[in-house]
Amino acid sequence: MKFREKLLAAAGQNQSWLCVGLDPDPALMPEHIGRGGEAILQFNRAIIESTFDLVCAYKPNAAFYEVLGAEGWTVLAETIKLVPDYVPVILDFKRGDIGNTARMYAEAAFGQLGADAVTVSPYMGEDSVKPFLDFKDKGTFILCLTSNPSSADIQKKALADPEKSQTETSLYRYVARLIRQWDTNDNAGIVVGATSPDELGLVRHDIGDNIPILIPGVGAQGGDLEKALQAGSNAAGRMAIINVARGVVYAGKGEDFRQDVRRAAEKYRQAIIQALRGKLNKHPTR
Amino acid sequence: MKFREKLLAAAGQNQSWLCVGLDPDPALMPEHIGRGGEAILQFNRAIIESTFDLVCAYKPNAAFYEVLGAEGWTVLAETIKLVPDYVPVILDFKRGDIGNTARMYAEAAFGQLGADAVTVSPYMGEDSVKPFLDFKDKGTFILCLTSNPSSADIQKKALADPEKSQTETSLYRYVARLIRQWDTNDNAGIVVGATSPDELGLVRHDIGDNIPILIPGVGAQGGDLEKALQAGSNAAGRMAIINVARGVVYAGKGEDFRQDVRRAAEKYRQAIIQALRGKLNKHPTR
Repeated sequence: MKFREKLLAAAGQNQSWLCVGLDPDPALMPEHIGRGGEAILQFNRAIIESTFDLVCAYKPNAAFYEVLGAEGWTVLAETIKLVPDYVPVILDFKRGDIGNTARMYAEAAFGQLGADAVTVSPYMGEDSVKPFLDFKDKGTFILCLTSNPSSADIQKKALADPEKSQTETSLYRYVARLIRQWDTNDNAGIVVGATSPDELGLVRHDIGDNIPILIPGVGAQGGDLEKALQAGSNAAGRMAIINVARGVVYAGKGEDFRQDVRRAAEKYRQAIIQALRGKLNKHPTR
Repeated sequence: MKFREKLLAAAGQNQSWLCVGLDPDPALMPEHIGRGGEAILQFNRAIIESTFDLVCAYKPNAAFYEVLGAEGWTVLAETIKLVPDYVPVILDFKRGDIGNTARMYAEAAFGQLGADAVTVSPYMGEDSVKPFLDFKDKGTFILCLTSNPSSADIQKKALADPEKSQTETSLYRYVARLIRQWDTNDNAGIVVGATSPDELGLVRHDIGDNIPILIPGVGAQGGDLEKALQAGSNAAGRMAIINVARGVVYAGKGEDFRQDVRRAAEKYRQAIIQALRGKLNKHPTR
Protein backbone atom coordinates (compact mmCIF):
# COMPACT_ATOMS: atom_id res chain seq x y z
CA MET A 1 0.00 0.00 0.00
CA LYS A 2 1.26 3.50 -0.75
CA PHE A 3 2.14 5.65 2.23
CA ARG A 4 -0.62 8.22 1.79
CA GLU A 5 -3.26 5.49 1.55
CA LYS A 6 -1.90 3.84 4.67
CA LEU A 7 -1.92 7.17 6.50
CA LEU A 8 -5.48 7.97 5.43
CA ALA A 9 -6.63 4.46 6.35
CA ALA A 10 -5.11 4.63 9.85
CA ALA A 11 -6.43 8.16 10.38
CA GLY A 12 -9.88 6.97 9.27
CA GLN A 13 -9.92 3.79 11.36
CA ASN A 14 -8.72 5.56 14.53
CA GLN A 15 -10.52 8.84 13.77
CA SER A 16 -7.29 10.62 14.57
CA TRP A 17 -4.66 12.95 13.14
CA LEU A 18 -2.48 12.61 16.23
CA CYS A 19 1.05 11.31 15.73
CA VAL A 20 2.82 10.24 18.91
CA GLY A 21 6.55 10.93 19.08
CA LEU A 22 8.47 7.93 20.39
CA ASP A 23 11.35 9.91 21.89
CA PRO A 24 12.48 7.92 24.92
CA ASP A 25 14.41 10.20 27.27
CA PRO A 26 15.71 8.28 30.32
CA ALA A 27 15.58 11.50 32.36
CA LEU A 28 11.80 11.69 31.88
CA MET A 29 10.71 8.04 31.83
CA PRO A 30 8.91 6.57 34.87
CA GLU A 31 11.57 5.48 37.33
CA HIS A 32 10.20 2.00 38.01
CA ILE A 33 10.82 1.01 34.36
CA GLY A 34 14.56 1.24 34.91
CA ARG A 35 17.15 2.44 32.42
CA GLY A 36 19.01 1.08 29.40
CA GLY A 37 17.95 -0.41 26.09
CA GLU A 38 15.63 -3.11 27.43
CA ALA A 39 13.81 -0.57 29.62
CA ILE A 40 13.35 1.78 26.66
CA LEU A 41 11.87 -1.01 24.60
CA GLN A 42 9.48 -1.84 27.46
CA PHE A 43 8.56 1.84 27.77
CA ASN A 44 7.88 2.13 24.03
CA ARG A 45 5.81 -1.07 24.15
CA ALA A 46 3.68 0.42 26.94
CA ILE A 47 3.19 3.66 24.95
CA ILE A 48 2.24 1.79 21.77
CA GLU A 49 -0.12 -0.64 23.54
CA SER A 50 -1.84 2.29 25.29
CA THR A 51 -2.29 4.49 22.24
CA PHE A 52 -2.22 2.57 18.95
CA ASP A 53 -5.99 2.95 18.43
CA LEU A 54 -5.82 6.71 19.05
CA VAL A 55 -3.17 7.76 16.53
CA CYS A 56 -2.64 8.12 12.78
CA ALA A 57 1.12 7.42 13.04
CA TYR A 58 4.12 7.12 15.33
CA LYS A 59 7.28 9.14 14.94
CA PRO A 60 10.47 7.86 16.60
CA ASN A 61 13.32 10.37 16.47
CA ALA A 62 16.59 8.62 15.62
CA ALA A 63 18.70 10.81 17.94
CA PHE A 64 17.14 9.26 21.05
CA TYR A 65 18.29 5.83 19.86
CA GLU A 66 21.68 6.72 18.34
CA VAL A 67 22.79 8.11 21.67
CA LEU A 68 22.77 4.49 22.93
CA GLY A 69 25.06 3.27 20.14
CA ALA A 70 24.55 -0.13 18.50
CA GLU A 71 22.06 -1.20 21.18
CA GLY A 72 19.96 1.86 20.40
CA TRP A 73 19.76 0.86 16.76
CA THR A 74 18.42 -2.56 17.79
CA VAL A 75 15.90 -0.94 20.14
CA LEU A 76 14.74 1.33 17.29
CA ALA A 77 14.26 -1.64 14.95
CA GLU A 78 12.38 -3.59 17.66
CA THR A 79 10.23 -0.56 18.47
CA ILE A 80 9.16 -0.20 14.84
CA LYS A 81 8.20 -3.90 14.83
CA LEU A 82 5.95 -3.37 17.87
CA VAL A 83 3.70 -0.94 15.97
CA PRO A 84 0.56 -2.65 14.55
CA ASP A 85 0.87 -3.13 10.80
CA TYR A 86 -1.93 -0.74 9.92
CA VAL A 87 -0.33 2.23 11.71
CA PRO A 88 2.45 3.98 9.74
CA VAL A 89 5.82 4.76 11.31
CA ILE A 90 7.59 7.99 10.35
CA LEU A 91 11.29 7.77 11.19
CA ASP A 92 12.43 11.28 12.05
CA PHE A 93 16.09 11.31 11.06
CA LYS A 94 16.45 14.50 9.01
CA ARG A 95 19.15 13.09 6.76
CA GLY A 96 20.39 14.59 3.52
CA ASP A 97 23.42 13.65 1.43
CA ILE A 98 24.49 13.27 -2.18
CA GLY A 99 22.84 10.66 -4.41
CA ASN A 100 24.59 7.36 -3.72
CA THR A 101 24.91 8.13 -0.01
CA ALA A 102 21.28 9.21 0.24
CA ARG A 103 20.36 5.85 -1.26
CA MET A 104 22.17 4.14 1.63
CA TYR A 105 20.24 6.21 4.17
CA ALA A 106 17.00 5.35 2.39
CA GLU A 107 17.90 1.68 2.41
CA ALA A 108 18.77 1.90 6.13
CA ALA A 109 15.40 3.48 6.97
CA PHE A 110 13.02 1.69 4.65
CA GLY A 111 14.87 -1.63 4.30
CA GLN A 112 16.86 -2.24 7.50
CA LEU A 113 14.45 -0.57 9.90
CA GLY A 114 11.17 -1.04 8.02
CA ALA A 115 9.94 2.53 8.47
CA ASP A 116 6.98 3.69 6.35
CA ALA A 117 8.28 7.23 6.00
CA VAL A 118 11.24 9.42 6.91
CA THR A 119 12.09 13.09 7.38
CA VAL A 120 14.88 14.60 5.26
CA SER A 121 16.49 18.01 4.84
CA PRO A 122 16.11 19.93 1.54
CA TYR A 123 19.35 21.93 1.87
CA MET A 124 21.32 19.85 -0.66
CA GLY A 125 18.59 19.99 -3.29
CA GLU A 126 16.68 17.56 -5.47
CA ASP A 127 19.32 14.88 -6.02
CA SER A 128 19.68 14.45 -2.25
CA VAL A 129 15.93 13.95 -1.80
CA LYS A 130 15.08 11.94 -4.89
CA PRO A 131 16.68 8.67 -3.70
CA PHE A 132 14.12 8.70 -0.87
CA LEU A 133 11.19 9.66 -3.12
CA ASP A 134 12.22 6.83 -5.46
CA PHE A 135 10.81 4.42 -2.87
CA LYS A 136 7.34 4.85 -4.31
CA ASP A 137 5.43 3.11 -1.53
CA LYS A 138 7.25 5.00 1.20
CA GLY A 139 6.71 8.57 2.40
CA THR A 140 9.38 11.27 2.48
CA PHE A 141 8.68 14.34 4.63
CA ILE A 142 10.94 17.22 3.65
CA LEU A 143 11.77 19.96 6.15
CA CYS A 144 10.26 23.29 5.15
CA LEU A 145 9.69 25.57 8.15
CA THR A 146 10.68 24.00 11.45
CA SER A 147 9.31 24.77 14.91
CA ASN A 148 12.50 25.97 16.60
CA PRO A 149 13.19 29.68 17.25
CA SER A 150 16.21 29.76 14.90
CA SER A 151 14.16 28.48 11.96
CA ALA A 152 14.05 32.13 10.89
CA ASP A 153 17.84 32.28 10.41
CA ILE A 154 17.69 30.60 7.02
CA GLN A 155 14.19 29.29 6.30
CA LYS A 156 12.51 32.68 6.48
CA LYS A 157 15.10 34.60 4.43
CA ALA A 158 13.57 36.59 1.60
CA LEU A 159 14.67 35.55 -1.87
CA ALA A 160 15.46 38.05 -4.56
CA ASP A 161 12.95 37.97 -7.36
CA PRO A 162 14.82 37.68 -10.63
CA GLU A 163 11.85 39.14 -12.49
CA LYS A 164 11.62 42.15 -10.15
CA SER A 165 7.90 41.74 -9.78
CA GLN A 166 6.28 42.76 -6.53
CA THR A 167 5.96 39.28 -5.12
CA GLU A 168 8.75 38.40 -2.77
CA THR A 169 9.11 34.80 -1.69
CA SER A 170 10.63 33.46 1.50
CA LEU A 171 12.96 30.50 1.24
CA TYR A 172 10.50 28.15 2.99
CA ARG A 173 7.77 28.94 0.44
CA TYR A 174 10.19 28.41 -2.38
CA VAL A 175 11.04 25.05 -0.76
CA ALA A 176 7.33 24.21 -0.47
CA ARG A 177 6.89 24.85 -4.21
CA LEU A 178 9.96 22.75 -5.01
CA ILE A 179 8.50 19.90 -2.97
CA ARG A 180 5.27 20.09 -4.94
CA GLN A 181 7.33 19.81 -8.14
CA TRP A 182 9.36 16.90 -6.76
CA ASP A 183 6.18 15.02 -5.80
CA THR A 184 5.90 13.03 -9.02
CA ASN A 185 5.31 9.74 -7.16
CA ASP A 186 2.60 11.14 -4.86
CA ASN A 187 4.68 10.30 -1.83
CA ALA A 188 6.20 13.56 -0.62
CA GLY A 189 5.31 15.10 2.72
CA ILE A 190 6.39 18.36 4.29
CA VAL A 191 7.34 19.51 7.78
CA VAL A 192 6.02 22.85 9.07
CA GLY A 193 5.95 23.76 12.76
CA ALA A 194 2.76 24.68 14.62
CA THR A 195 4.69 27.65 15.96
CA SER A 196 4.11 29.46 12.62
CA PRO A 197 0.36 29.08 11.95
CA ASP A 198 0.16 31.86 9.35
CA GLU A 199 3.03 30.41 7.37
CA LEU A 200 1.46 26.95 7.71
CA GLY A 201 -1.59 28.26 5.86
CA LEU A 202 0.58 29.70 3.10
CA VAL A 203 2.37 26.39 2.68
CA ARG A 204 -0.93 24.47 2.50
CA HIS A 205 -1.99 26.93 -0.19
CA ASP A 206 1.27 26.40 -2.09
CA ILE A 207 1.28 22.58 -2.00
CA GLY A 208 -2.39 21.89 -2.65
CA ASP A 209 -4.56 19.30 -0.91
CA ASN A 210 -2.71 16.04 -1.43
CA ILE A 211 0.59 16.43 0.38
CA PRO A 212 0.52 15.62 4.12
CA ILE A 213 2.03 18.17 6.49
CA LEU A 214 3.80 16.85 9.58
CA ILE A 215 3.32 19.48 12.28
CA PRO A 216 5.57 19.43 15.33
CA GLY A 217 5.64 22.18 17.96
CA VAL A 218 2.24 21.73 19.65
CA GLY A 219 2.48 21.36 23.42
CA ALA A 220 5.91 21.83 24.98
CA GLN A 221 7.00 24.24 22.22
CA GLY A 222 3.87 26.38 22.52
CA GLY A 223 2.20 25.95 19.13
CA ASP A 224 -1.60 26.41 19.04
CA LEU A 225 -3.37 23.16 18.13
CA GLU A 226 -6.53 24.72 16.74
CA LYS A 227 -4.75 27.29 14.58
CA ALA A 228 -2.37 24.63 13.29
CA LEU A 229 -5.24 22.39 12.16
CA GLN A 230 -7.20 25.28 10.73
CA ALA A 231 -4.23 26.33 8.61
CA GLY A 232 -2.54 23.01 7.92
CA SER A 233 -5.34 20.61 7.06
CA ASN A 234 -6.67 20.40 3.53
CA ALA A 235 -10.16 21.34 2.34
CA ALA A 236 -11.50 18.01 3.63
CA GLY A 237 -9.91 18.50 7.07
CA ARG A 238 -7.25 15.89 6.40
CA MET A 239 -3.49 15.55 5.91
CA ALA A 240 -2.40 17.70 8.87
CA ILE A 241 -0.48 15.35 11.18
CA ILE A 242 -0.16 16.79 14.68
CA ASN A 243 2.93 15.38 16.34
CA VAL A 244 3.08 15.35 20.13
CA ALA A 245 5.85 13.63 22.06
CA ARG A 246 6.44 14.94 25.58
CA GLY A 247 2.77 15.88 26.13
CA VAL A 248 1.74 12.24 25.68
CA VAL A 249 4.60 9.88 26.45
CA TYR A 250 5.61 11.58 29.72
CA ALA A 251 2.04 12.22 30.90
CA GLY A 252 2.53 9.81 33.81
CA LYS A 253 5.36 8.92 36.16
CA GLY A 254 3.81 6.26 38.42
CA GLU A 255 3.12 2.54 38.09
CA ASP A 256 -0.13 3.40 36.30
CA PHE A 257 1.52 5.68 33.73
CA ARG A 258 -0.14 3.78 30.89
CA GLN A 259 -3.52 5.18 31.89
CA ASP A 260 -2.13 8.71 32.05
CA VAL A 261 -0.55 8.27 28.64
CA ARG A 262 -3.79 6.97 27.13
CA ARG A 263 -5.76 9.78 28.72
CA ALA A 264 -3.34 12.40 27.33
CA ALA A 265 -3.47 10.89 23.83
CA GLU A 266 -7.25 10.73 23.91
CA LYS A 267 -7.39 14.38 25.02
CA TYR A 268 -5.30 15.44 22.04
CA ARG A 269 -7.32 13.22 19.71
CA GLN A 270 -10.59 14.80 20.88
CA ALA A 271 -9.15 18.31 20.64
CA ILE A 272 -8.11 17.55 17.05
CA ILE A 273 -11.58 16.24 16.19
CA GLN A 274 -13.14 19.40 17.68
CA ALA A 275 -10.80 21.73 15.82
CA LEU A 276 -11.38 20.00 12.48
CA ARG A 277 -15.14 19.99 13.06
CA GLY A 278 -14.94 23.72 13.75
CA LYS A 279 -13.05 24.30 10.51
CA LEU A 280 -15.39 22.20 8.36
CA ASN A 281 -18.48 23.82 9.87
CA LYS A 282 -17.07 27.23 9.07
CA HIS A 283 -16.15 26.19 5.53
CA PRO A 284 -18.40 23.24 4.67
CA THR A 285 -17.07 21.19 1.77
CA ARG A 286 -20.59 20.48 0.49
CA MET B 1 43.55 19.42 22.56
CA LYS B 2 41.17 21.57 20.53
CA PHE B 3 40.11 20.25 17.14
CA ARG B 4 41.87 22.87 15.03
CA GLU B 5 45.16 22.33 16.89
CA LYS B 6 44.83 18.58 16.40
CA LEU B 7 44.10 19.07 12.71
CA LEU B 8 47.07 21.42 12.23
CA ALA B 9 49.35 19.07 14.18
CA ALA B 10 48.37 16.03 12.10
CA ALA B 11 48.65 18.03 8.85
CA GLY B 12 52.08 19.24 9.95
CA GLN B 13 53.39 15.86 11.09
CA ASN B 14 52.18 14.07 7.93
CA GLN B 15 52.79 17.05 5.61
CA SER B 16 49.32 16.45 4.24
CA TRP B 17 45.93 18.09 3.73
CA LEU B 18 44.42 14.87 2.37
CA CYS B 19 41.43 13.45 4.20
CA VAL B 20 40.53 9.88 3.30
CA GLY B 21 36.84 9.01 3.23
CA LEU B 22 36.13 5.73 4.99
CA ASP B 23 33.04 4.83 2.96
CA PRO B 24 33.03 1.04 2.75
CA ASP B 25 30.88 -0.06 -0.18
CA PRO B 26 30.68 -3.89 -0.42
CA ALA B 27 30.13 -3.57 -4.18
CA LEU B 28 33.57 -1.95 -4.59
CA MET B 29 35.69 -3.66 -1.92
CA PRO B 30 38.29 -6.28 -2.96
CA GLU B 31 36.48 -9.58 -3.25
CA HIS B 32 38.91 -11.66 -1.20
CA ILE B 33 38.09 -9.62 1.90
CA GLY B 34 34.58 -11.04 1.95
CA ARG B 35 31.40 -9.23 2.94
CA GLY B 36 29.62 -8.25 6.17
CA GLY B 37 30.57 -6.23 9.23
CA GLU B 38 33.77 -8.09 10.10
CA ALA B 39 35.04 -7.78 6.52
CA ILE B 40 34.34 -4.05 6.50
CA LEU B 41 36.27 -3.60 9.71
CA GLN B 42 39.20 -5.53 8.20
CA PHE B 43 38.99 -3.40 5.06
CA ASN B 44 39.00 -0.17 7.07
CA ARG B 45 41.92 -1.45 9.14
CA ALA B 46 43.88 -2.09 5.94
CA ILE B 47 43.09 1.41 4.64
CA ILE B 48 44.08 3.06 7.91
CA GLU B 49 47.29 1.06 8.31
CA SER B 50 48.29 1.88 4.72
CA THR B 51 47.59 5.61 4.87
CA PHE B 52 47.62 7.02 8.42
CA ASP B 53 50.99 8.77 7.90
CA LEU B 54 49.77 10.38 4.65
CA VAL B 55 46.58 12.11 5.81
CA CYS B 56 45.43 15.02 7.96
CA ALA B 57 42.14 13.29 8.88
CA TYR B 58 39.74 10.45 8.12
CA LYS B 59 36.08 10.95 7.30
CA PRO B 60 33.72 7.98 7.71
CA ASN B 61 30.26 8.65 6.27
CA ALA B 62 27.57 7.33 8.64
CA ALA B 63 25.28 6.15 5.82
CA PHE B 64 27.67 3.36 4.84
CA TYR B 65 27.45 1.96 8.38
CA GLU B 66 23.78 2.62 9.15
CA VAL B 67 22.79 0.52 6.18
CA LEU B 68 24.09 -2.49 8.16
CA GLY B 69 21.90 -1.73 11.17
CA ALA B 70 23.16 -2.26 14.73
CA GLU B 71 26.21 -4.15 13.51
CA GLY B 72 27.17 -1.20 11.33
CA TRP B 73 27.11 1.09 14.33
CA THR B 74 29.55 -1.23 16.13
CA VAL B 75 31.80 -1.36 13.04
CA LEU B 76 31.78 2.45 12.90
CA ALA B 77 32.78 2.73 16.58
CA GLU B 78 35.53 0.11 16.11
CA THR B 79 36.78 1.85 12.96
CA ILE B 80 37.14 5.15 14.79
CA LYS B 81 39.16 3.36 17.50
CA LEU B 82 41.57 2.03 14.85
CA VAL B 83 42.67 5.52 13.84
CA PRO B 84 45.92 6.59 15.58
CA ASP B 85 45.25 9.11 18.35
CA TYR B 86 47.03 11.97 16.63
CA VAL B 87 44.88 11.80 13.48
CA PRO B 88 41.44 13.46 13.78
CA VAL B 89 38.25 11.69 12.69
CA ILE B 90 35.47 13.72 11.08
CA LEU B 91 32.18 11.83 11.27
CA ASP B 92 30.16 12.81 8.20
CA PHE B 93 26.56 12.49 9.35
CA LYS B 94 24.96 15.78 8.24
CA ARG B 95 22.52 15.88 11.13
CA GLY B 96 20.42 18.84 12.21
CA ASP B 97 17.54 18.97 14.67
CA ILE B 98 16.12 21.21 17.38
CA GLY B 99 18.15 21.94 20.53
CA ASN B 100 17.59 19.01 22.89
CA THR B 101 17.60 16.51 20.02
CA ALA B 102 20.73 18.03 18.49
CA ARG B 103 22.40 17.55 21.89
CA MET B 104 21.63 13.81 21.66
CA TYR B 105 23.19 13.62 18.19
CA ALA B 106 26.25 15.48 19.48
CA GLU B 107 26.51 13.10 22.43
CA ALA B 108 26.18 10.12 20.05
CA ALA B 109 28.99 11.38 17.81
CA PHE B 110 31.44 12.87 20.29
CA GLY B 111 30.65 10.71 23.32
CA GLN B 112 29.44 7.31 22.10
CA LEU B 113 31.55 7.13 18.95
CA GLY B 114 34.50 9.30 20.00
CA ALA B 115 34.64 11.36 16.79
CA ASP B 116 36.77 14.54 16.79
CA ALA B 117 34.41 16.42 14.49
CA VAL B 118 31.09 16.07 12.67
CA THR B 119 29.26 17.53 9.71
CA VAL B 120 25.86 19.17 10.28
CA SER B 121 23.24 20.94 8.16
CA PRO B 122 22.54 24.67 8.70
CA TYR B 123 18.94 24.58 7.44
CA MET B 124 17.33 24.72 10.91
CA GLY B 125 19.48 27.65 12.05
CA GLU B 126 21.70 28.52 14.99
CA ASP B 127 19.94 26.62 17.78
CA SER B 128 20.26 23.38 15.79
CA VAL B 129 24.03 23.89 15.35
CA LYS B 130 24.99 25.38 18.71
CA PRO B 131 24.64 22.11 20.70
CA PHE B 132 27.46 20.74 18.52
CA LEU B 133 29.59 23.90 18.77
CA ASP B 134 29.15 23.78 22.55
CA PHE B 135 31.57 20.85 22.57
CA LYS B 136 34.51 23.25 22.61
CA ASP B 137 37.25 20.72 21.93
CA LYS B 138 35.35 19.15 19.03
CA GLY B 139 34.97 20.41 15.48
CA THR B 140 31.65 21.09 13.75
CA PHE B 141 31.69 21.37 9.96
CA ILE B 142 28.55 23.07 8.69
CA LEU B 143 27.30 22.46 5.15
CA CYS B 144 27.58 25.58 3.01
CA LEU B 145 27.86 24.75 -0.71
CA THR B 146 27.90 21.03 -1.43
CA SER B 147 29.48 19.23 -4.37
CA ASN B 148 26.34 17.66 -5.89
CA PRO B 149 24.67 19.04 -9.03
CA SER B 150 21.45 19.98 -7.17
CA SER B 151 23.33 22.13 -4.67
CA ALA B 152 22.17 25.06 -6.83
CA ASP B 153 18.49 24.36 -6.06
CA ILE B 154 18.64 26.04 -2.68
CA GLN B 155 22.22 26.91 -1.73
CA LYS B 156 22.82 29.21 -4.69
CA LYS B 157 19.51 31.09 -4.49
CA ALA B 158 19.94 34.87 -4.47
CA LEU B 159 18.72 36.59 -1.32
CA ALA B 160 16.85 39.86 -1.41
CA ASP B 161 18.82 42.69 0.08
CA PRO B 162 16.63 44.42 2.64
CA GLU B 163 18.67 47.62 2.29
CA LYS B 164 18.35 47.63 -1.51
CA SER B 165 22.05 48.20 -1.97
CA GLN B 166 23.69 46.80 -5.06
CA THR B 167 25.26 43.82 -3.37
CA GLU B 168 23.24 40.69 -3.76
CA THR B 169 24.17 37.69 -1.68
CA SER B 170 23.62 34.05 -2.44
CA LEU B 171 22.29 31.84 0.33
CA TYR B 172 25.56 29.91 0.65
CA ARG B 173 27.52 33.14 1.23
CA TYR B 174 24.98 34.26 3.79
CA VAL B 175 25.43 30.86 5.47
CA ALA B 176 29.22 31.29 5.37
CA ARG B 177 28.90 34.62 7.17
CA LEU B 178 26.52 33.14 9.72
CA ILE B 179 29.06 30.40 10.41
CA ARG B 180 31.75 32.99 11.03
CA GLN B 181 29.43 34.66 13.55
CA TRP B 182 28.60 31.34 15.20
CA ASP B 183 32.30 30.51 15.57
CA THR B 184 32.68 31.93 19.08
CA ASN B 185 34.50 28.82 20.34
CA ASP B 186 36.99 28.67 17.44
CA ASN B 187 35.73 25.23 16.50
CA ALA B 188 33.49 25.70 13.46
CA GLY B 189 34.35 24.30 10.08
CA ILE B 190 32.57 24.61 6.76
CA VAL B 191 31.85 22.30 3.83
CA VAL B 192 32.28 23.59 0.27
CA GLY B 193 32.63 21.32 -2.75
CA ALA B 194 35.62 21.37 -5.10
CA THR B 195 33.10 21.44 -7.93
CA SER B 196 32.60 25.20 -7.31
CA PRO B 197 36.15 26.63 -7.16
CA ASP B 198 35.12 30.27 -7.69
CA GLU B 199 32.56 30.10 -4.91
CA LEU B 200 35.13 28.35 -2.72
CA GLY B 201 37.35 31.42 -3.01
CA LEU B 202 34.45 33.71 -2.06
CA VAL B 203 33.71 31.59 1.00
CA ARG B 204 37.37 31.65 2.09
CA HIS B 205 37.22 35.42 1.74
CA ASP B 206 34.04 35.59 3.82
CA ILE B 207 35.19 33.36 6.68
CA GLY B 208 38.80 34.57 7.08
CA ASP B 209 41.86 32.43 7.64
CA ASN B 210 41.02 30.43 10.75
CA ILE B 211 38.06 28.26 9.80
CA PRO B 212 38.91 24.96 8.08
CA ILE B 213 37.06 24.12 4.86
CA LEU B 214 36.25 20.49 4.20
CA ILE B 215 36.31 20.04 0.43
CA PRO B 216 34.64 16.99 -1.11
CA GLY B 217 34.16 16.53 -4.84
CA VAL B 218 37.74 15.99 -6.05
CA GLY B 219 38.21 12.83 -8.08
CA ALA B 220 35.05 10.85 -8.91
CA GLN B 221 32.89 14.00 -8.88
CA GLY B 222 35.23 15.94 -11.16
CA GLY B 223 36.42 18.82 -8.95
CA ASP B 224 39.85 20.28 -9.85
CA LEU B 225 42.36 19.68 -7.04
CA GLU B 226 44.66 22.57 -7.84
CA LYS B 227 41.89 25.14 -8.19
CA ALA B 228 40.27 23.92 -4.98
CA LEU B 229 43.47 24.37 -2.99
CA GLN B 230 44.24 27.69 -4.61
CA ALA B 231 40.82 29.01 -3.65
CA GLY B 232 40.13 27.16 -0.42
CA SER B 233 43.38 27.31 1.54
CA ASN B 234 44.16 30.30 3.72
CA ALA B 235 47.00 32.80 3.23
CA ALA B 236 49.46 30.33 4.77
CA GLY B 237 48.32 27.50 2.49
CA ARG B 238 46.48 25.72 5.30
CA MET B 239 42.98 24.75 6.40
CA ALA B 240 41.75 23.36 3.07
CA ILE B 241 40.99 19.70 3.71
CA ILE B 242 40.76 17.72 0.48
CA ASN B 243 38.50 14.72 0.97
CA VAL B 244 38.93 11.75 -1.35
CA ALA B 245 37.12 8.47 -0.81
CA ARG B 246 36.70 6.35 -3.94
CA GLY B 247 39.95 7.57 -5.55
CA VAL B 248 41.94 6.14 -2.63
CA VAL B 249 40.09 3.36 -0.87
CA TYR B 250 39.11 1.52 -4.07
CA ALA B 251 42.46 2.05 -5.82
CA GLY B 252 43.16 -1.70 -5.69
CA LYS B 253 41.12 -4.85 -6.06
CA GLY B 254 43.70 -7.62 -5.66
CA GLU B 255 45.43 -9.29 -2.71
CA ASP B 256 47.97 -6.44 -2.72
CA PHE B 257 45.35 -3.68 -2.65
CA ARG B 258 47.07 -2.07 0.35
CA GLN B 259 49.99 -1.02 -1.86
CA ASP B 260 47.63 0.43 -4.47
CA VAL B 261 45.76 2.32 -1.76
CA ARG B 262 48.97 3.72 -0.29
CA ARG B 263 50.22 4.69 -3.74
CA ALA B 264 46.95 6.50 -4.52
CA ALA B 265 46.99 8.36 -1.19
CA GLU B 266 50.64 9.37 -1.68
CA LYS B 267 49.84 10.61 -5.19
CA TYR B 268 47.08 12.87 -3.84
CA ARG B 269 49.33 14.02 -0.98
CA GLN B 270 52.09 14.99 -3.41
CA ALA B 271 49.64 16.72 -5.73
CA ILE B 272 48.35 18.74 -2.76
CA ILE B 273 51.90 19.70 -1.72
CA GLN B 274 52.64 20.82 -5.30
CA ALA B 275 49.45 22.84 -5.58
CA LEU B 276 50.03 24.61 -2.26
CA ARG B 277 53.66 25.31 -3.15
CA GLY B 278 52.45 26.83 -6.42
CA LYS B 279 50.02 29.07 -4.56
CA LEU B 280 52.55 30.22 -1.95
CA ASN B 281 55.20 30.94 -4.57
CA LYS B 282 52.73 33.07 -6.45
CA HIS B 283 51.67 34.89 -3.31
CA PRO B 284 54.55 34.53 -0.82
CA THR B 285 53.46 35.14 2.77
CA ARG B 286 56.78 36.78 3.70
